[in-house]
Amino acid sequence: MSVYQRLTEQFARIATLNEAAAMLGWDAAAMMPAGGGVARGEQISTLAGLAHELLTRPALADDLAAAAPAGDEWQARNLELMREAQQRATALPRRLVEARVLATNKCEMLWREARPASDFAAVRASLEEVFALTREAAGILGETFGLSPYDALMSQYQRGIGAADVAPVFTNYELFLQKALPAAEERQRRRSHETLPPGPYPADIQEALCRRLAQDAGLDFAHARLDRSAHPFCGGTPTDVRITTRYDEMDPLSAICGVLHETGHALYEQNLPRDHRRQPVGEAAGMAAHESQSLIVEMQAVRSDAYLSYLAPFLSQAFARPVNEAALKRRLLHVERSFIRVEADEMTYPAHVILRFRLEQALISGDLAVADLPGAWNDGLAALLGITPPDDRQGCLQDIHWYDGLVGYFPSYTLGAMAAAQLMAAARLAVPDLDKAFASGDLSPLVTWLSTHIHRHGSRFGFNELLLAATGEKLNPAAFETHLTARYLA
Amino acid sequence: MSVYQRLTEQFARIATLNEAAAMLGWDAAAMMPAGGGVARGEQISTLAGLAHELLTRPALADDLAAAAPAGDEWQARNLELMREAQQRATALPRRLVEARVLATNKCEMLWREARPASDFAAVRASLEEVFALTREAAGILGETFGLSPYDALMSQYQRGIGAADVAPVFTNYELFLQKALPAAEERQRRRSHETLPPGPYPADIQEALCRRLAQDAGLDFAHARLDRSAHPFCGGTPTDVRITTRYDEMDPLSAICGVLHETGHALYEQNLPRDHRRQPVGEAAGMAAHESQSLIVEMQAVRSDAYLSYLAPFLSQAFARPVNEAALKRRLLHVERSFIRVEADEMTYPAHVILRFRLEQALISGDLAVADLPGAWNDGLAALLGITPPDDRQGCLQDIHWYDGLVGYFPSYTLGAMAAAQLMAAARLAVPDLDKAFASGDLSPLVTWLSTHIHRHGSRFGFNELLLAATGEKLNPAAFETHLTARYLA
Repeated sequence: MSVYQRLTEQFARIATLNEAAAMLGWDAAAMMPAGGGVARGEQISTLAGLAHELLTRPALADDLAAAAPAGDEWQARNLELMREAQQRATALPRRLVEARVLATNKCEMLWREARPASDFAAVRASLEEVFALTREAAGILGETFGLSPYDALMSQYQRGIGAADVAPVFTNYELFLQKALPAAEERQRRRSHETLPPGPYPADIQEALCRRLAQDAGLDFAHARLDRSAHPFCGGTPTDVRITTRYDEMDPLSAICGVLHETGHALYEQNLPRDHRRQPVGEAAGMAAHESQSLIVEMQAVRSDAYLSYLAPFLSQAFARPVNEAALKRRLLHVERSFIRVEADEMTYPAHVILRFRLEQALISGDLAVADLPGAWNDGLAALLGITPPDDRQGCLQDIHWYDGLVGYFPSYTLGAMAAAQLMAAARLAVPDLDKAFASGDLSPLVTWLSTHIHRHGSRFGFNELLLAATGEKLNPAAFETHLTARYLA
Repeated sequence: MSVYQRLTEQFARIATLNEAAAMLGWDAAAMMPAGGGVARGEQISTLAGLAHELLTRPALADDLAAAAPAGDEWQARNLELMREAQQRATALPRRLVEARVLATNKCEMLWREARPASDFAAVRASLEEVFALTREAAGILGETFGLSPYDALMSQYQRGIGAADVAPVFTNYELFLQKALPAAEERQRRRSHETLPPGPYPADIQEALCRRLAQDAGLDFAHARLDRSAHPFCGGTPTDVRITTRYDEMDPLSAICGVLHETGHALYEQNLPRDHRRQPVGEAAGMAAHESQSLIVEMQAVRSDAYLSYLAPFLSQAFARPVNEAALKRRLLHVERSFIRVEADEMTYPAHVILRFRLEQALISGDLAVADLPGAWNDGLAALLGITPPDDRQGCLQDIHWYDGLVGYFPSYTLGAMAAAQLMAAARLAVPDLDKAFASGDLSPLVTWLSTHIHRHGSRFGFNELLLAATGEKLNPAAFETHLTARYLA
């Protein structure tokens, strides 16, 4: 067996352990009785510990050092990503890893109490500890990979994109928003005020039609399931994707949009390159890339005029009550300054991300003390959206991310939204009659194009290289602004 | 950390991996889309491989050799069982283990085609290979543990019980059956011929009441789930037990009895000693012991006059049609000579086991050639029950066990049935008003007694020692014969 073959076997073994952990994570959210929680945590952490052991074995490091430069482009990239994964696993001292696990577990637990009580003081000391440890880890990872501490954190979620790439994009968007948002609000006031028929919309009917819409969007249910969980997500593995949602009987569109969002993620996983299954190069290209795939389905395709013209009669029939297109648009294409990120519309959502991007950079650099976070949050939101949260529950306590040690993740959401607009513009040019297909509920021409230009590349390219190959340009936020202008200002 | 503590940590880690594999096995049977099968097989075999690696590490062997004799009885037994597990894992050469996996996979695949076609010739050569490899493994395990080859196979499923314990019990039962069966058949002819109301009995209603009956039997659904699968089983882990069943809308009693059977297994798992969780000594005492717990619920308690007097009006109400006690008894307490083991009643079931026990001993010793199995099967069944299968589908092709490499397992079923009768007799003496509780659908006094005398002992005792402690006697088949006589001949 060649050194490279031996490496692929080891990485496949590690990936297989991670698959097992992913299935157990899905089960914990969608199936597990409450009493199984403690044992499940131990099962998942045992699997993670073994995967880490396999990744940090000296024999693996020896093989990585000995592996000959590969002639094949995929192999060369795979080796590069193997080395990166191995370096990431060995960079942090065990003491620090364990201290972070303890600190984030404790902090998340305190946050679960502090958020509903809007009591930042109750979690402040614990969050300080989390940021101190995260800063230490960021410094070590930065040295290992030749990055700034904050960029080292970002690169955990989206390789090859740093603060210097993101900052100007965000600054420009802030300028765009200052003009676009009031204009969109003004235009909105003049729109029809039709509403959806009142509920309830039975959960079982919602579930059946979510399944149907996901299938029509291209999801292969021989390799997927749709279930219910408190927080919707896409989990599982490429040949057995598990998506979840929750059903609100007063609002069917929440589950429909949620399921189509997760379907976008799921299609990416299902169409990853099979020849490179369980290899680093065969994985999705990062979280911004992943988010672009959920958002191109949920925001670009499903909210298009063409698709909504299909969806309105489809829903009318399924629920046996009149759902008209104007009411759908009013509900799904509504812009509003609000406090909660996860409920924000696509125009104001980036403001929430920009706020967090700036604050987490300052928290990592030490320019902002955790104690000053609530004030800085409120000032920042006021500057971006002109509104001030009435309490920390609707301010700096709303997201789990930081309290769980996730720093550097937020930009992925908006990079994904921007990339989705850029990809849709390219797809519209490349694929004739895309909107004609949308008008009959058929997303397959889009999915085929995405599969060819994004999914099947796995992690062969970085985020910008992927966009360059697919659209002829690196990330260019102009497409997103054009999209918003057409949808909300035209 | 003491040597013993280090050992318990290692064994807990191995058990945690096995828990993860158990959950994935449940998911494969109850949830997984068909397309996930290949990856799932790889996930489970990766976990098994890692558990085997951990169990065969030289450091573990060193610790086992160095561990001081424990003062505490539980610790001493745990060490003994740790050594046994480690010896079992290291005894067989890797070549043999891998050859058996390949041979049994292939043989099971051929069997899946051969059974419906009743074509023994199609699987014969493959079964010969399975038995040759099983015989080789049995020889090595026998040498390791100082047992005969067949006893070494039996001990994989029920430690401490060998052919010499079982053979006289079975010979006696055969004599009992020769008189009891014709007498029971004669008495049956004179019984009322009332029948259950015709179906369908909706699966959803069946499921709801199976859940209710399992709960009333003591199953804690904060630590358990009930789902559907093609083949009913009890899986999962002690704090998260997963039982499954299938629903036949023309016959509600099949699912009800099935779920209560699995509930018996589940109660055993839920009540294992928590202080010894994930240690060998904390596991159930073996497959015969486990089967005694499912059968004491399904056969002893649920089919008792008292419980059936509760079940009849309960079912009448749930299905809104008259289910009378006489019809229930006629359906659930019916004796019949038949070809298929899994459909057999409790009186003839042991004959099916006795047949297999004798045949598999002869196949392992070489006294019987695989080629001669169909004839020997048919002769054996004729001698035991006076009937001859019309084809091999209803003869030696009916069970998956041998084709899957499971040899030495069958006696557990009947040892379990006999132990269940013995335990019920002891419980009736020890617990006042047991049948009064059954008559109100309440199994808790029985479960409490079982929990104290069986469940909470884990693997502290062997099968016979467990029965001795619980009932004052080692396995004594007299209680089973007394039970059958009272139920079918009185």
